[in-house]
Parts: sequence; structure tokens; C-alpha cells
Amino acid sequence: MGRILLRSMAIVLVTSFIGCNQSIESKNLSIQADGSEPSYQNLMPVPASIELQEGKFYLDDSFQVAVEGNPDKRLYRAIGRTIKRLSGRTGLFLPQVFFNPDEKPSDPNMHVYVEKAAHIQFGMEEAYQLKISDSGISLKAETDVGAIRGLETFLQLLDADTSGYFLPALTIDDAPRFPWRGLLMDACRHFMPVDVIKRNLDGMAAVKLNVLHWHLTEDQGFRVESKTYPKLHELGSDGFYYTHEQIREVVAYAADRGIRVIPEFDLPGHATSWLVAYPELASAPGPYTIERKWGIMQPTFNPAIEETYTFLDAFFKEMTALFPDEYVHIGGDENKGVHWDSNDQIQAFKKRMGFSDNGDLQNYFNQRLLTSLKSYGKKMIGWDEILHEDMPKDIVLQSWRGREAMITAAQRGYRSLLSNGYYIDLHQPTDYHYLNDPLPADSPLNEKEQSLILGGEATMWAEFVTPEIVDSRIWPRTAAIAERFWSDRSVQDLDDMYRRMKITSFRLEELGLTHERNYPMMLRRLTGNRDIVPLKTLVDVLESVKVYSRNRQRVHYSYTPLTRVIDAARPDAEVARLFRQNVDRFLNQGGSDPSLASEINQHLISWSGNHAKLSTIIDASPILHEIRPMSEALSAVADLGLESMELIQSRGEVGVSWIEQSTGILEKAGKPVAQTELAILSAIEALVKYLK
Amino acid sequence: MGRILLRSMAIVLVTSFIGCNQSIESKNLSIQADGSEPSYQNLMPVPASIELQEGKFYLDDSFQVAVEGNPDKRLYRAIGRTIKRLSGRTGLFLPQVFFNPDEKPSDPNMHVYVEKAAHIQFGMEEAYQLKISDSGISLKAETDVGAIRGLETFLQLLDADTSGYFLPALTIDDAPRFPWRGLLMDACRHFMPVDVIKRNLDGMAAVKLNVLHWHLTEDQGFRVESKTYPKLHELGSDGFYYTHEQIREVVAYAADRGIRVIPEFDLPGHATSWLVAYPELASAPGPYTIERKWGIMQPTFNPAIEETYTFLDAFFKEMTALFPDEYVHIGGDENKGVHWDSNDQIQAFKKRMGFSDNGDLQNYFNQRLLTSLKSYGKKMIGWDEILHEDMPKDIVLQSWRGREAMITAAQRGYRSLLSNGYYIDLHQPTDYHYLNDPLPADSPLNEKEQSLILGGEATMWAEFVTPEIVDSRIWPRTAAIAERFWSDRSVQDLDDMYRRMKITSFRLEELGLTHERNYPMMLRRLTGNRDIVPLKTLVDVLESVKVYSRNRQRVHYSYTPLTRVIDAARPDAEVARLFRQNVDRFLNQGGSDPSLASEINQHLISWSGNHAKLSTIIDASPILHEIRPMSEALSAVADLGLESMELIQSRGEVGVSWIEQSTGILEKAGKPVAQTELAILSAIEALVKYLK
Repeated sequence: MGRILLRSMAIVLVTSFIGCNQSIESKNLSIQADGSEPSYQNLMPVPASIELQEGKFYLDDSFQVAVEGNPDKRLYRAIGRTIKRLSGRTGLFLPQVFFNPDEKPSDPNMHVYVEKAAHIQFGMEEAYQLKISDSGISLKAETDVGAIRGLETFLQLLDADTSGYFLPALTIDDAPRFPWRGLLMDACRHFMPVDVIKRNLDGMAAVKLNVLHWHLTEDQGFRVESKTYPKLHELGSDGFYYTHEQIREVVAYAADRGIRVIPEFDLPGHATSWLVAYPELASAPGPYTIERKWGIMQPTFNPAIEETYTFLDAFFKEMTALFPDEYVHIGGDENKGVHWDSNDQIQAFKKRMGFSDNGDLQNYFNQRLLTSLKSYGKKMIGWDEILHEDMPKDIVLQSWRGREAMITAAQRGYRSLLSNGYYIDLHQPTDYHYLNDPLPADSPLNEKEQSLILGGEATMWAEFVTPEIVDSRIWPRTAAIAERFWSDRSVQDLDDMYRRMKITSFRLEELGLTHERNYPMMLRRLTGNRDIVPLKTLVDVLESVKVYSRNRQRVHYSYTPLTRVIDAARPDAEVARLFRQNVDRFLNQGGSDPSLASEINQHLISWSGNHAKLSTIIDASPILHEIRPMSEALSAVADLGLESMELIQSRGEVGVSWIEQSTGILEKAGKPVAQTELAILSAIEALVKYLK
Repeated sequence: MGRILLRSMAIVLVTSFIGCNQSIESKNLSIQADGSEPSYQNLMPVPASIELQEGKFYLDDSFQVAVEGNPDKRLYRAIGRTIKRLSGRTGLFLPQVFFNPDEKPSDPNMHVYVEKAAHIQFGMEEAYQLKISDSGISLKAETDVGAIRGLETFLQLLDADTSGYFLPALTIDDAPRFPWRGLLMDACRHFMPVDVIKRNLDGMAAVKLNVLHWHLTEDQGFRVESKTYPKLHELGSDGFYYTHEQIREVVAYAADRGIRVIPEFDLPGHATSWLVAYPELASAPGPYTIERKWGIMQPTFNPAIEETYTFLDAFFKEMTALFPDEYVHIGGDENKGVHWDSNDQIQAFKKRMGFSDNGDLQNYFNQRLLTSLKSYGKKMIGWDEILHEDMPKDIVLQSWRGREAMITAAQRGYRSLLSNGYYIDLHQPTDYHYLNDPLPADSPLNEKEQSLILGGEATMWAEFVTPEIVDSRIWPRTAAIAERFWSDRSVQDLDDMYRRMKITSFRLEELGLTHERNYPMMLRRLTGNRDIVPLKTLVDVLESVKVYSRNRQRVHYSYTPLTRVIDAARPDAEVARLFRQNVDRFLNQGGSDPSLASEINQHLISWSGNHAKLSTIIDASPILHEIRPMSEALSAVADLGLESMELIQSRGEVGVSWIEQSTGILEKAGKPVAQTELAILSAIEALVKYLK
């Protein structure tokens, strides 16, 4: 299905983007000899247009790239990195790992032509054209950033047959659907050292994201060095903050990959860590200490005193010099105003200013920040709460509470981003995020309003992630979100998305991302380095409870260990998803397909016997004691599944008592254990239900 | 055997170190219910003295540490990290992850007492005493660095039973055998970003190493920012160098773990990358470019011109301010003086100065550096080539060409370190390094001379390591070398070392080290994300060719891809070692033990059938084509092994033709393939030989 879709899409898109409709050789579209898909079927995000041609370009040690035009020097570094990845995958000895633009290769196989250097800013040109024939490769782009996007496509096209490594002959014309395609990384709830940010920037570049939204201040930590107010990071960070040099290092690293960096300084709420150092700027009397719990906290800047604005103006003066992007994110979310309401002086100020509510008061605060930012040549972005009729139209709103906020903003003439539906910290499945289109076909917005929707951002809030697991929450799901922002709205095939995401996920590993490799490591720690297979069998079908349930089931802190089973379990558990898919297919086909039945039963048998194997490991590892009921539940529902499968295939009858008993087992297994849930349960329920 | 040894040793050491001889409860020494060893048997390095007591200290969420005395603040951070690791392993919610010395716990279970802050320098006090009873824990040390060593022992003692996590009641008195226990990291042949250095510093601290020897300049790269001569890093590094702030960050990170940082600026040879920027200081006319090949190169500073010394004096002025340790390493190795001999002006200078050979000339050069270093308050360390009768006795020599250099140095009154025998880049087995004692029982040195042997350093030369694989070359073998430097000479049991090293290796993973987790990742890349099991079966018993053979078999460059099978293969392949051990035991017992036979045959059967499975994967992955003969060889020798096993057990006779044929198979399999060798071959040879 994925193949068919991509084929028809390619034709459609060739028509719509390029205006030509060259025929595609159908033999190129066939599955390869070893059963794998040809590499042009693996692209993620799907490009705007692909035209397939006959032929293959084979790679060998003589592969050489020549650059023409006027690119920024970052392109040379990007080519060096591309060659290094190519060499790493193929084992070819390629000297241009150290790409030197002054050494002109005598007989280059690849020509990169770039008209001009991009400025890394909103709206930068990212289009490129990649042509591959059996005799050579050409990559053309208006800017070096466009070429950098094209180099990622080039790497995704690498394929192999018995003759060697090759790229398929084709022409790709590509450009993004939305100009603002971001990932928020929260470095506050848990600090994310520079190397974590860097490897994720590499991952972002690989799927053509172009904005790192860096959440730098929070109740739980102030994460940026301030030379103007050093007490901020000295008292507010537990020693975990980025120095100016590190900030510059990250900004340069991002720019090298065509990625903007937008800092967020969350104001006036989410501000406890600032007020540890400056309680005199708070709305309620101090002293303050760094917050250790998660949740919505009350400490808030005092908007009624001039000292607040003097302080923040000087702070922004420093920070706007540090971050080159035109936009600065001021947060603005979740200020309940509790401390405003309890402060007489603030109440008097509100009255004096004629503000009708805390919204007006916060808008006053925001306007004062806006004045500061403007004076330093910056534009404001904030969460949807900052929308107010007094705001000028050049701000950007980030909708998180619902897409309605985005729609309202556009209808009132404001530009906005969608983040609602892309909260990757909430452990929802990829397809949920993937189908969440900022501008679906039935969008209520007219064309002009639609042009105000700049794109979106996935948000990696960090209450429950550490450097050890953060990659596994971001990847691979964010690759699918990146495709939503880059590719045409019509690219929607879920099976094909999952297929390509798996390949992309594997390729992301070469960038040092740890989403795959840290999983067995965590299982080894949980078992005390005993055999991890039985635990893996269980955790492969577990998922964290969704949305905000983890916080509701137990109070959590900055020091909550994130090394338990729930933390090893990964969102959108693949084994479970494929099993559910198989059961769906099996039942839709009337419960008789023997090959599907055999596949389903194989899993059920392995789960059925798993608790017996895992039980002694649980005994020996106290950290696993909490998961025992879930291990029992997996084996119990697997037994029920096996029984149901037999009955379905033998067209057996079930009585009331069987149904009652089954319902009991399912209900018991449906209760979260140690904040995890069994991701195959709905499939077992479906089997039982089929029999009723 | 390991257990017995540790027990007797403990008694011996209690006698010799503490002067008491308390009896050890033998029931504490028994293997635990689940077959694992009690945790005090797992310590690495083995402490100077252990006295076991009755009882266990159980951990729960109420665990709290109190600090008394006058430690450096680094101790608080070290306790925070210790609590975090403890919490990570146990799943306990421990607020002291954020250790705050101002918050006095009401009822602490652990008391840490430290007399004074250590200065991180040669000879700092590292002794500690750790007492654990069922009611609490006490850790006492003269310095915070001693306490930091004790915290690592504390973590190694963590154990579990069905009641929960505990530490065994005991008293450990511990102190190092040698004061200088180092790891050299070469950041030049391949650049090692700050995060790689940091995670390895964590690994070093975990096994009580105390010196990072940071090799910062080489023919292939100049890796430190110079504000005095910025062209050095701008032209000599390909953009890969440490900034001053990063150097300070690493030095502080190391000091927090009680680790000294010694920079090495290799002079006068190994100097190509300096001369790219300053060809006028070279002994032969330029221009120079960054060297891309490995080997011994000729570019050398000109020792006959005053400009060289003016330049290096200013350079050392900058660097000595950046690195706080008293010692600066000036390299001094492998200068063949080829460019000196071909330079008339240098020849004239030599004559004028009355130097009889290039050794004298290099000594003149070294003396000039020494004058500079002294003027900045530093002492000199260099490779064994810098030994010369004119050198003062306060230099330190690092013996790499052989232990004779160390012995000669000591006999002439110089202090020295042993690195010969600890070259972990040469892929030799752990036991080889482990048994390489700087001062074995038969050392020719007298007591006074022995006191001049300061310790040793493992050397991670980086021709064939990248950030992706460097950890797998350092760890776990360096844990055994660390034990050689810390523990008593009598600690020599190889089986027990391997057993404890495996546990240590697993525990090192929690520090972010990638020696385990990157292995399957590399296999996934090699197979193009196909099933990795058959490839793993092969690579599990492959090792790189040893010592300098890899360079001899093919010319290598800075851009040689280090992602091939040889790079995935790990030194001292464990599967192969255990197999060889089993075969040894089997043959020593007369070739009849059925359980050993069954274990051996199981492996042989799996290898026998492996090529059939791996062959199609090799077909599909061109990067694997080179390994095909080795895959065939593994299956061929496994078949031979199976045949031999059958003949041995049936006491069958073999004829001349069988022996000839077998010899042919073994000879063929003995040839390196793609620079790898089959680490089980000697075991198969032993089986065949047994039949002859």
C-alpha cells in the first residue's frame, strides 16, 4: 500500500509542483530481490516530487564532490559530515571526509551548486533539486541550507545490491510545506548537557527540522549563565547551566545544520528559580528555593513594580546579544495569578491601571517585555495565553492548549504555530501526532488566514526524561512529525509512515542518538545484568500511562529515579502495535487465515510462558518487584488469547461463565501497574469480543 | 578459586596493613542463594583490607547522608552523583540527589567524615575507611578525594536479596599501591569531544584512576585553542580543537573526581600540525599540511634557532596558566632527526655546540623547554627518550619502549612510570596487561629505587578509534589495569579478575560509557538493519590483528572508516576466551567430561551452521563482502572441531590424511581476513593436536 501511495503521489506532485508528468518506469517501483524496498521508497520526509529514471549510480573509493557557486562555508563542513556518514555505512575510504574547497577534484562524480549563502532565519530558502544518473549526481539549491537539506535526501537514497552501494537514478525537486518546523527541548526539568542537544540537532537536520526551541528557565531550574545577574544561574541551577560559550557553541552547531535556535525565558510564571536569587521581584514574599516537584507553581514576577522591568530589560539586553535569531520566546503560559490576587499592592496597581482582570495585567507585563525586545531588534513569540487585542500583529503565537487558539489567532490576523497534538512527552502513538495536520483539508481558515500558520513544533517537556532516555521519547516519533511539517498534506498512509519511520530510526543511530542502544542497557541495569530476554519480552509490550496520568498516580520530583520499567518502556511499543494490527487483520478476515493465526499464536505462546521465566529475575531484583502483577497479567491475558484463538478457529461456542471469567481477567489486566499499561490488551479484548 | 583467593588475601592484608587479624565469618563467604557472588567479592580494584562482619544494611527511601569535617565542596557534588547512581539502580526516591550540606538530615544512616580538602596534585592522600553495620555506614578519610574513592567502593558493594537492596556489614581499610595511576587519551589522531572525555573520566573515577594524560598535539591535529598563536588551532585542527573554556571544564570535571589532568604537547617531533601554521620553525622547508596518514613522520621543530624557543616559551606561558597540574608532558618520542640531518644550519649548530649526536641536540632542546617550564612553576614529564645525564632528577620519565627504560631510569635516580605493556590500542588480552606489574616480586630494583616507580598509565592511542568505539577499547580492560596500579601485587588470580571485570564493565554502563551498547548498533549498521544474530555470532569470536599489524596490512588514514567488522570486534573477545578455557579444561581432564563436552559442542554446532545464515546477509551488505572468507572459515573449523570432539570422546584413531586435511583447514583459517583473526582457532588446534 505504501508503494502504491508513493507512486501515485509522486505523479500528482510532479504535476502540481513541476508541471510535467513524465512517466515512471514501473519496473523501478518493484520490490527488490531480497524483499526490501528500493531506497527512494524510504525517504522521510517524502519530497515534493520524485521522477524516477533508469539506472544506478555506483559508489566507490573514487567518489568525489565538487562545489560551485557562492555557498556559506557551512556547506563544506556539511559535505564533510555527509562523506563521513557515507564512508561509515559503506566502508569506502573517502578522503573528502576532510572536505577542502581549495582542492579541486580532477573528476568529480557529484556537483553541488549553490547560488548564495543563507541567513539562518525565519523564511530562509530551503528548496533543492537532486538529480542522479548512472554517470553522476547534481545537487542544486538557491542557498547552502537548501543544499544541506538535499544532502540528507542523498544519504537516505543510499542503497545496495550484490554489485555494491548505489543511488537510484532520479530527479527530486523538493521544498518544505511550512517554514517553521521545530522541536522544543526543555533543559530545565532535567538538564540536558550540550552533547545531548547536539546529537538531537543532528537528528533534527536528518529529518529537515529547522527550529530548536530551547526552554531555558523554569520553576525547577535556571539554565543559562547570566553575566549581568550571575546569581540567577549560581543560585537557580544546582550548578547545571549553559555558559555563554556553550550557548554560542550550540547556536553555531545548529546554524551549521540550517537550524535556528529560539531561546525561551518563561515569564511571568514558571519563575521560581529566578526568584531564588531575586525574591524582591516576586509577587509574594520569599525566600524561594528551587522547586523539586512537578506541576503548576505559583511563584510569579511582580508586574506592578518598575524594578521588574528594569531587571528584565537588562537581562534581555544580555540574552538578545547571545542568541542571534530574530525571535525570543517569553513563555507566558499557566500563570494563574494566585500570588497577584493575594498581593494588595498588585491589586491596587491593577485598579489604578484600569485592568479588568489578570489577563489585562499579564498583557501589560508582556507589552513591557515587548518594548524591551523591540529595542534590541527582536520579535516576540509566546504560548497562546499571550494573545491579547493590544498585541501587535508581528508576534507569533504557539498554540498548546488546543488548535482553536491557533485558528482564533489566524482569524484575528496573528501568525501562529501548532504544538497542540505534538506533545511527545505524553506517550501517545505516532499516528496520533502524524494525522494532526496544522491545516487539514477541512480547515475553517481561508487562504489568507492559512498563510499565517507558520508550521509547528514537537515539545519534549522534560519532567520524565534524562539524558539517558530523552532520545527515546523524541525519536523516532519526531521523524513522523517532521514529515507532517515538510511534506504535502496528502502524505497520510499510516502503514507506509511506520515502515519508513523504522528505517529512519535505524539511520538516526549513526548520529549518536541513543533511542535504540540505551534500551537493552536499561534492561541490564533493571535485572542486575541477568538474562534480559524475559524482561524485554514484557517491556516490549508495555507503555507508560498516557498524557498526565503518571503525575496523577504518584507525586514526582526532580529526583524521581527515571530508571524503572516505565522509563525503559518506549512510546508506541512496536511489538504491541504490530500484534494489534495482526489481530485486526485476522478478525477482519473472519478469523481463519492460518498464517496470521500462527503468527499471533507464536506471540501468545511466548507471553504465556514468560512470567515463569521472569519471576525468578523479579525475585532477585527489588527494583522489579513493582512490575510483578503486570508480568502475571501478560501471561494471563496471553492464555486467554490462546484460548480465544482456538475457539475462533474451531468456531467454538462460549458460555456466560467463560465470558464473565474473561472479562475479569481483562479488567484486572487493564489496571495500570507501576504506571505502565499493557499495549496488547485491546487486541486480546477484540479476540474475546469476537466470540461473544 | 576467586573467592578463596580473596579470602586469604583479605586476611593477609588485614595483617599487613592494619595489624589485626580478626576472624572472617565463613558463612558470609558462601555463594548467595541465586548463585551470584556476594558483592564484597566483586570489588575492583580489590581493597587493601576487608574485614567481614555479620549483618546487612538495608536501603530504603529514608536513606540519608550527613557530612562532617572540612571537605572541599567537590565532596557534596560527589555524594549527589553517588545518590543518583544508587537511586538509578534501586528505583528508590532519594532527595539527596541534590545534596545540600546546609540541610542537616535528622536521622542520617551514613556519616561521611573528612579532615581536609585535598589539593588535586601528585601524592594527594587517597586512603579511606568504610564501615558498614546493619544500623549504618561510616566513611572516613583524611581528604575528600579519599572519601570519593570510598564512595565508589560503597557503590560496588550494593547487593540485593528478596527483602531489598543492602550492603554487607564489613570494614574496609584501603589505600593505593601507586600514587600515579593514569589513562592517556589521544585526542589528535581522532578528535574526542568533551563529552567523550567526561564519560571516560567518570569511568576512571569508578576504578580509582587519578591521572588523565591528555595527548593534545600530533602530526594529525593540533587540538587546543591558543590565544597567543591562534593560527595553531585555526590551521592545524580541521576545526576540531578544545577551547580554553572546554579545557577548564574538563579540568574542573576531573578535579571533582579527584583526577589530575596532564597535558601533552609532543615536541620536537610529531609536530606536523604546528608547522602548518609556522613552517619557519621547522627543520625542513615547508609548506606543511595536516598529516592524513598514520606512522612516524619527519616534520620536527628546528632546535638551532632562537625563534623556536621564544615561540615555545610564549606557548607554554599560555598553557601552563590553563592547566593547573604541576606536570607538563613534552612528549619527546620518536624523533628520528631525519630533517635535522638534512639541514646544514642545524648540522653547523650541532658542531658549534659540541653535540656528539642527535640525542645531545634533542637534550639541548629539552633543556630549553625545561627552563621555560620551570619559570612557570612546572615540572617536566616526557617519554623515555628524554632521559639524558644532563636532566635534573625532578623530571618524570614515562617508559613506553620497554620496562628496561624504567629500570635504568630508577637505577640512575629518576622517577618513572610504566606504560610499556599497557598499550590498550594494540588489542592484546586483559591478562597480558594485568600481569604486567611495574614492580614484580623479581624486580631488580632495590627498595630506594622501587620508591621511584610512581605507577603507570594505560595508553589509548587514537589511530583506530572514534568517539563511537573508543570506550570499547578502553573498557573494560582498563579496569584491570587500574587494579594493577591500586591493589596489592599479590592480587593476581586471572579467573577472578575476569569475573570481577565483567561485573565492573556492566556497572560502568550507568556512567554513559558505550562499550557495550554501541556493539549491536554497529552490527545493525553493518547489516543494513537486518537480523544481526548471525553476524554477532561471527564477530563475537573475532579480534583485530594485534600490535601494529593493522597498519602493516594496509595503509591507513585519518579518513579510514572505522565502522567495519574489525572495528565492531572487541579486544579480548569474551565468547572466544571462555570457549578456549572450556577446551583447555576438557582436554586437561582427559577429554571425557560430558557437561563440558556438551557446552563445547553447542558452540561448535552454532558456528558450524552460521555461515549458511550469514551468507545472504553478506550478499546484501557490500561492507561485509570482505569478511566472507572468515565466515566460511568459522564454519569450517567448527566442523573440524565437532569431528575432533567426536573422535576424542569415542577414543577414535586418526590417520595421516585426516591430520593433513585438518592442518590445511587450520592454516587457511589462521590467515587474517579483513585485518581480523579468529580467536577460537587455538582451541580447535588444541583439539586436533590432542588427536595426533
